[in-house]
Amino acid sequence: MTGQPTTATGGTGVTAAAGFTATGVTAGLKPSGAPDLALVQNLGPDHAAAAVFTTNRIQAAPVTWSRGAVADCRLRAVVLNSGGANACTGAPGLQDATTMAARTADALGLEAGDVAVCSTGLIGTRLPMDLVTDGIDRAAAQLGADGGAAAARAIMTTDTRPKEAARTATGAAGSWTVGGMAKGAGMLAPGLATMLVVLTTDARVEPEVLRGCLREACRLTFDRADSDGCMSTNDTVLLLASGASGVEVGAEELQAPLTEVCADLAAQLIDDAEGAAHTIAVTVAGAATEDDAVEVARAVARSNLFKCAVYGRDPNWGRVLAAVGTTRAAFEPDQVDVTFNGVTVCRGGGIGDDRSGVDLSGRQVTLLVELGAGTASATVWTNDLTHDYVTENSEYST
Amino acid sequence: MTGQPTTATGGTGVTAAAGFTATGVTAGLKPSGAPDLALVQNLGPDHAAAAVFTTNRIQAAPVTWSRGAVADCRLRAVVLNSGGANACTGAPGLQDATTMAARTADALGLEAGDVAVCSTGLIGTRLPMDLVTDGIDRAAAQLGADGGAAAARAIMTTDTRPKEAARTATGAAGSWTVGGMAKGAGMLAPGLATMLVVLTTDARVEPEVLRGCLREACRLTFDRADSDGCMSTNDTVLLLASGASGVEVGAEELQAPLTEVCADLAAQLIDDAEGAAHTIAVTVAGAATEDDAVEVARAVARSNLFKCAVYGRDPNWGRVLAAVGTTRAAFEPDQVDVTFNGVTVCRGGGIGDDRSGVDLSGRQVTLLVELGAGTASATVWTNDLTHDYVTENSEYST
Repeated sequence: MTGQPTTATGGTGVTAAAGFTATGVTAGLKPSGAPDLALVQNLGPDHAAAAVFTTNRIQAAPVTWSRGAVADCRLRAVVLNSGGANACTGAPGLQDATTMAARTADALGLEAGDVAVCSTGLIGTRLPMDLVTDGIDRAAAQLGADGGAAAARAIMTTDTRPKEAARTATGAAGSWTVGGMAKGAGMLAPGLATMLVVLTTDARVEPEVLRGCLREACRLTFDRADSDGCMSTNDTVLLLASGASGVEVGAEELQAPLTEVCADLAAQLIDDAEGAAHTIAVTVAGAATEDDAVEVARAVARSNLFKCAVYGRDPNWGRVLAAVGTTRAAFEPDQVDVTFNGVTVCRGGGIGDDRSGVDLSGRQVTLLVELGAGTASATVWTNDLTHDYVTENSEYST
Repeated sequence: MTGQPTTATGGTGVTAAAGFTATGVTAGLKPSGAPDLALVQNLGPDHAAAAVFTTNRIQAAPVTWSRGAVADCRLRAVVLNSGGANACTGAPGLQDATTMAARTADALGLEAGDVAVCSTGLIGTRLPMDLVTDGIDRAAAQLGADGGAAAARAIMTTDTRPKEAARTATGAAGSWTVGGMAKGAGMLAPGLATMLVVLTTDARVEPEVLRGCLREACRLTFDRADSDGCMSTNDTVLLLASGASGVEVGAEELQAPLTEVCADLAAQLIDDAEGAAHTIAVTVAGAATEDDAVEVARAVARSNLFKCAVYGRDPNWGRVLAAVGTTRAAFEPDQVDVTFNGVTVCRGGGIGDDRSGVDLSGRQVTLLVELGAGTASATVWTNDLTHDYVTENSEYST
């Protein structure tokens, strides 16, 4: 605990980096009996932290709590639960979030103000706090350096599989690791059926560097994963640095592996989105600005008619153009090309190559919209709109 | 034809007002053999006209043509076809639209510049012009004062029923009528599977009054009918005044019946939206401004998770709040009430009355969001998101 270099643990996800323990338990919040409560502890020697929260103005109690907890750029633990979002629960809900932090702190010998809280599940119902606090006690007793996988599993809601990623970088001063876990299977923009992400690194990083790199990584990855255009009240991305590798890292070194881990997790989220049959990368190129490219890509990604067409394996470039045309981006309609999986079915705003040459039978779809207005580009990842999406979201309450 | 008062014809829809003839024929554009080409003629004595077109920057050829034709505030006929949108068809498509106007003008003894053109159907394919021109000739030969119903039927695409409305007003100077027809069954915002509306009146109205009243009526009705958030390349609303009643009408007299006819048609569009199981009126009250109310109502109306919940008969106020929270409207989260069909399931941003008291089994759903921030209000009409919506839009190309 004195800042000596430590090698990565062999754990996965949030425990891939040294200095972290984690676990997941069944607190009994889910009717299914599946694991539903996770802990992550940063053993140090550093306890630097940064966070990005939902921009939704309706914010769940754990977001309110965690925003305050991370304000001093320092966290020592995170407690997460599935099976209840603790959103729209008023003052009693905030008290519950506070209790979760305090109980975790008690169990681990920490201050409550150093514990972040994340919740996901149904909005508008109180958590059964007796089950939660009992779960926290049991989780605290079984934290381990190989517990990342269990933690990733305990935060799942309609996710069909846990989501973990890690990268190890080696510089002159030695090796260090960035890892993380994520959950969220619908309502990603970032979105409901909430996206929760905990990232960890054993690098020694200044808090302001952590914060800047996390914002940039989120901007390029989670912010551009737009499954269904819906934004959650609970979305949270946390980054904790233990310094356990002893390797000091600046922004220029941290940015790439951190963004890679975030991109990996974002891709896993989209690949596992509720009821989706296709993962669609909407790339807009030839834009006047990156903002234009993102605006156009997001407009296409949010067109229900486009999303239904992909589900029906129809390279419907008319629906793409109709979505492009709703934006304020710089372009001339007769300069736009649209390419589905390599076939340019629309050229110069009109009929292009034979659409029967497009094969949309696979999971991955690449849509390229070339605006002919500049050199900027951006990609937004989304899903198709399917019968299963409707089934999951009409029969499952979130 | 000299401005003498004339009584309404007994026709319906666009022929409810005196001075108009219409018809619908099968030109052969639809594989089904259903009627697919309509004509409406204004016999005068006046030929004042106003129009509102899609704000989509990708505009179909008939929109480009009609925008020019109505620029002088004068139209004598409208030719409409289903079975092909003539959108994204470049210069040849514009030539086709021009040919449709010219052929109609020839058949009726008019100038092409007095003929508006409307098309709906698949984007990105040329119209079979030999069939179109033959259809125009046959339609011109059978125009009748009772032809409104046939015209309304000929412009249907995935609509399950034709849509007509009319109102007759009586003032000191006599009676006059406003009537109209509409089509559009999906992608209404106003939207693809395009919304086409032709309105007629036998009142004598100054062109600038027509234009102002049409804009205001559209703002309050069609602009707030948002079935699936998608905007078409072809949306067109035309208003033609014949003056055949001889009754001069100003803006204050015209506005109310015109808005009523538009509201009637908008309601029919939403009631017949592709695959919808519910018609949802999203009313936002207690807003600081009308713009705030519209922004919030539209955000809720465009939330796929909310729309799926209604389909599943789930009064999921959490999804409503999550959508409200994405807006810039003035409100405090702990001041918001949400009421489904009369039951206030969310009160003060938290848990309200028992949600099991909400019955969502009927077609009509009334959602009231009270922001507690002022006195302005607005209603946006939308639909639920259903398996049938996905089926229609993944198997049917528009």
